[in-house]
Amino acid sequence: MNYSKRITRLKASAIRDVQKKIVKKADVISFAAGLPDQQLFPVADLKESTEKVIDEQGCVAFQYGLTKGFSPLIGEIAKRMREKKNVDISDENIVITTGSQQGLALAGLMLLDEGDLVLTENPSYLGAINAWRPYGCDFLGIETDQEGMVLEELRQVLSTHKNTKLIYVIPNFQNPTGKEWSLERRIKFMELVASFDVTVVEDDPYGELRFKGEELPTLASLDKKGQVIYLGSFSKVLCPGFRVAWMCANNDIASQAERLKEGLDLQCNQFSQLQVYQYLKDHGMEKQITTIVRSYKEKCEEMVRCISENFPKSCTYTDPDGGMFLWVELPAHLNANTLLDTAIERGVAYIPGEFFYVGAEKQNTLRLNFTTVSKEQIIKGIKILGGLLEEVC
Amino acid sequence: MNYSKRITRLKASAIRDVQKKIVKKADVISFAAGLPDQQLFPVADLKESTEKVIDEQGCVAFQYGLTKGFSPLIGEIAKRMREKKNVDISDENIVITTGSQQGLALAGLMLLDEGDLVLTENPSYLGAINAWRPYGCDFLGIETDQEGMVLEELRQVLSTHKNTKLIYVIPNFQNPTGKEWSLERRIKFMELVASFDVTVVEDDPYGELRFKGEELPTLASLDKKGQVIYLGSFSKVLCPGFRVAWMCANNDIASQAERLKEGLDLQCNQFSQLQVYQYLKDHGMEKQITTIVRSYKEKCEEMVRCISENFPKSCTYTDPDGGMFLWVELPAHLNANTLLDTAIERGVAYIPGEFFYVGAEKQNTLRLNFTTVSKEQIIKGIKILGGLLEEVC
Repeated sequence: MNYSKRITRLKASAIRDVQKKIVKKADVISFAAGLPDQQLFPVADLKESTEKVIDEQGCVAFQYGLTKGFSPLIGEIAKRMREKKNVDISDENIVITTGSQQGLALAGLMLLDEGDLVLTENPSYLGAINAWRPYGCDFLGIETDQEGMVLEELRQVLSTHKNTKLIYVIPNFQNPTGKEWSLERRIKFMELVASFDVTVVEDDPYGELRFKGEELPTLASLDKKGQVIYLGSFSKVLCPGFRVAWMCANNDIASQAERLKEGLDLQCNQFSQLQVYQYLKDHGMEKQITTIVRSYKEKCEEMVRCISENFPKSCTYTDPDGGMFLWVELPAHLNANTLLDTAIERGVAYIPGEFFYVGAEKQNTLRLNFTTVSKEQIIKGIKILGGLLEEVC
Repeated sequence: MNYSKRITRLKASAIRDVQKKIVKKADVISFAAGLPDQQLFPVADLKESTEKVIDEQGCVAFQYGLTKGFSPLIGEIAKRMREKKNVDISDENIVITTGSQQGLALAGLMLLDEGDLVLTENPSYLGAINAWRPYGCDFLGIETDQEGMVLEELRQVLSTHKNTKLIYVIPNFQNPTGKEWSLERRIKFMELVASFDVTVVEDDPYGELRFKGEELPTLASLDKKGQVIYLGSFSKVLCPGFRVAWMCANNDIASQAERLKEGLDLQCNQFSQLQVYQYLKDHGMEKQITTIVRSYKEKCEEMVRCISENFPKSCTYTDPDGGMFLWVELPAHLNANTLLDTAIERGVAYIPGEFFYVGAEKQNTLRLNFTTVSKEQIIKGIKILGGLLEEVC
């Protein structure tokens, strides 16, 4: 059996190994998840919309559809991108993807040859890096401060590394840190990249989950040269089970993505595209976003409060304005991965932060999710974790 | 904008261009489709199963699931592969894929490096070839006779082309020809490939759609060395809109496929996996297959009868035992692609056969689909086509 070179470059998901470890032990309060709160899925509304789809458009919904996606849904997404995200595009710029993960895969297949360089925030979302690793590109993490990617370092790298093909960023409530980029950093970032022949993948699954502060412009809306591939998704604002997401990019990229997608899976699930479309027609998106944001806000604030009361003062943490995650930095001598076994034994789990780094890992970091746990679990779990940290800090 | 090398190797789907041409002209009787008959979708049963999924397992169905697929569905598929297809496997050998097209993509990503050689029947399914083209491999069509791939030629090529990585075949009611391989050819094929370090992709979307003759063993069931990647699908026996299909392969291949799939789309649509599972629990598969087969048999027989009455004797055609397609060979001096415009003008369409060849195209061939047209349309359309052929033959 001779596998392709791609297989030799694949890396197993370390996060998944951690999650397997957690599953083995019952009654663990898990802050390790990356899932939306399933208690909030609008089950009754989705049932009603689903029944309408079957009754009124069963044959269309069960049949093959277009590679690019279900046209009325594309129309709705394009409208939302124009009106809410202020991106000047039309239906031609949208391709429906099987989760944003497929948007990442398409971007990688489209752009990355062996020896190309990908720049990411550091830490960043592993799922993107792992998707691209098989294509033989190199990765370089760019220092990220409170306002976003550090532009002096980015400029330096772009000037000296002519093989830079792609910059991957999550400007809104990033996974894993929960941080968002400032307005000024967004503007200056786009000004900087405009001088280079490089493509930006703006991954925005959490942008709608804002519970504090004012909405900031997407990089796509600041893009004057068609450099940004924007990835949006219904996974965090409606439900992930449908795998309905979209890529928004310049005409040429969108049409190459469509051609590549034909080879990847021919088309997305037609039934779920109609489910989402019908749901949007019946209920719009705002009602559900409001419900989610209200709940996540309370949980996040509870978690921040508990951390401030229970963690040693030598620990720092983010206080996110939205999203699903919070990031903790322990004193430099500690290793969050080593601590995990004890934490799980005591009944609480998290994801060690080291897995999210591209080079130069900070082993004293960890990611906490607050969306799939109750307030009671947050109170209890953070207390346990705080107790453990008090012992070792 | 510097695309990857993959993009330069992409080829636009010629079939799609033909289909666009047809859509432009109303009232064309189209034998050009590749779709199952949507009138046969079990809409009421699917509605009932869908409602059960939402009522009983809404949160699971709307949530993220496993990359490998929904375990109970995997269990059902493995059982069917053992009992109906006689393949000695367990749940570990199955990965749920987003359509069989994703199975093809996974096989390509897993196996094909630049300069590798892929052997196919000739003609063959374009969707596989186009999925693999970006990876820089070469293709060689192997002569195919009434019993399947011609083994003398295959042996010759395997012996002289050490870069052969993969053999792609559709032994049951092939797209585009509707042919099936004989029992003897299947056995001898597997004996032959067992002496070479090569992987066989057995694409079997039509195997259940048999309306004549006895079921023949899959290559997977004759595979003693774990060389076969079997691709099965619910698209043609239930509905394609769900994009629920599966790969069945040896443990190592299945586990590499799972890792690669994580990068491609993380997981399949969870909701539709539960829909299919619930449908199987409520109704099994046989009832719907019986309905489909009865209808396709009548339509196919009608088409064969009409061809025999209306086409010039210098035309030959297949008389399939199952599937969705029938293949016509015109006298050698004719070009089916050139004839198509006149055919469409007169109100009938087909797919020119030349698009399905890997090298050495036969331009005097065409593919006819009989599943999406009524018997009346078959009678009328074949008469029109026969009239045109009488004029030019």
